[in-house]
Amino acid sequence: MYQSKVQRRIHYALTDQMGVVYHGRYAEFFEIGRTESLRDLGITYKEVEQSGTMMPVTEMHIRFFRSAKYDDLITIVTTLKELPTGHKITFYSEIYNEKQELLTSGSVTMYFLKIRTMEKTTMPEFIFEKVKRFF
Amino acid sequence: MYQSKVQRRIHYALTDQMGVVYHGRYAEFFEIGRTESLRDLGITYKEVEQSGTMMPVTEMHIRFFRSAKYDDLITIVTTLKELPTGHKITFYSEIYNEKQELLTSGSVTMYFLKIRTMEKTTMPEFIFEKVKRFF
Amino acid sequence: MYQSKVQRRIHYALTDQMGVVYHGRYAEFFEIGRTESLRDLGITYKEVEQSGTMMPVTEMHIRFFRSAKYDDLITIVTTLKELPTGHKITFYSEIYNEKQELLTSGSVTMYFLKIRTMEKTTMPEFIFEKVKRFF
Amino acid sequence: MYQSKVQRRIHYALTDQMGVVYHGRYAEFFEIGRTESLRDLGITYKEVEQSGTMMPVTEMHIRFFRSAKYDDLITIVTTLKELPTGHKITFYSEIYNEKQELLTSGSVTMYFLKIRTMEKTTMPEFIFEKVKRFF
Repeated sequence: MYQSKVQRRIHYALTDQMGVVYHGRYAEFFEIGRTESLRDLGITYKEVEQSGTMMPVTEMHIRFFRSAKYDDLITIVTTLKELPTGHKITFYSEIYNEKQELLTSGSVTMYFLKIRTMEKTTMPEFIFEKVKRFF
Repeated sequence: MYQSKVQRRIHYALTDQMGVVYHGRYAEFFEIGRTESLRDLGITYKEVEQSGTMMPVTEMHIRFFRSAKYDDLITIVTTLKELPTGHKITFYSEIYNEKQELLTSGSVTMYFLKIRTMEKTTMPEFIFEKVKRFF
Repeated sequence: MYQSKVQRRIHYALTDQMGVVYHGRYAEFFEIGRTESLRDLGITYKEVEQSGTMMPVTEMHIRFFRSAKYDDLITIVTTLKELPTGHKITFYSEIYNEKQELLTSGSVTMYFLKIRTMEKTTMPEFIFEKVKRFF
Repeated sequence: MYQSKVQRRIHYALTDQMGVVYHGRYAEFFEIGRTESLRDLGITYKEVEQSGTMMPVTEMHIRFFRSAKYDDLITIVTTLKELPTGHKITFYSEIYNEKQELLTSGSVTMYFLKIRTMEKTTMPEFIFEKVKRFF
């Protein structure tokens, strides 16, 4: 298992008139979590794209338990439960507020695609080498 | 079953650097579909809130098959498969492009909550009366 | 002078916890107004990019008089006051609510750039031919 | 003069299909800059609203020189040039990339309004006391 944490402050633009973060914005928090989990390994998603691989999302699932509010400092916990050996990768995300209450949990599944041909491929070697030691 | 359709044009702000609509924006299309499905019944969600009921999202699930692109005219199909008699309601959404290709399908489940007390409640009577004839 | 109008319904995602549309979202309304003003001439901005020209924004100015609210049907009025003969084009925008109250006015200036070389250029001939009759 | 700096990482959701940050998203960076400039003084905008004052934006002006790109770590510099003694306050913002190139500069002017009555007011005393020593 590989796990990573990052924090973000909720700004006004993310809220809606219910006085909480709009439910549709959590996909962005999950994205930030995934990107920073790669950065913690010394990899940027920019390098992934530059190496010729893109990772379009094929499925997303989110459950909402409590709302994030304006000015909350949220913690995004991103987990890779399995080493991906096929064409897909699934990241699990949990978001907590400062009281350590679970706000949201979810998962996002992506394909590995070759940018040039749009064919399915597998996890780029340079990521696999850095991730495999956690499994 | 109650079903409703609405179309929207994709503007630049919705795209990302993959050249397609950012996956996190589809929640907004689903929202637009739900709102317009109520409007087709002669109800606005604004009236729902004014009547003292709010409908926070508790769960969302999306599958992505093809990408919506800049300037696409998408069709959002919103379906209520069951008449909600409890505290929750689930809307099913499908999004198609102009070639009638299925881009995305998903579901969004919401609670009925009393705004004043935050207690669970059921579908407001004035919606129930208008929806029940479809089931 | 060339002028065009388009309407849009305010959905929940555009609101913030002040109970009104977040000020940062108006740039999108202006974009929608510009795009639809081209479409009224039989041109899509997609064709502009396909013809090798891009139009990045260089300056934007917005004044806010009243707030757009959830479920408002806003009218976006887009005006081209001068036929652009140089490297820049300025669109003027006004946004009204259903009571015909002026909510926002602003202007957005863009460059004409050749996508391949990033050099400044002038308005593509096929747009110029369609717009010039208004001046 | 009072000045404050904060950094943010550009995530995918902020980009558009030109491969750069969508021009309409900069208003959010300015907002983040203003909020963090208050926080550096030991004040949160949440406290401002809780004290009964809201600060709706009345005018925004942005000039774009270079584009922020995916994964850029931008620096938002927020400056208060004058101590506000009337009903309005103007924040000046500049955004730089990691090479210290100026990407964007702009200003945002807000009113001080009493939330209860919507009447114009002046800067809340508890902010004024903390800011005045810089002028």
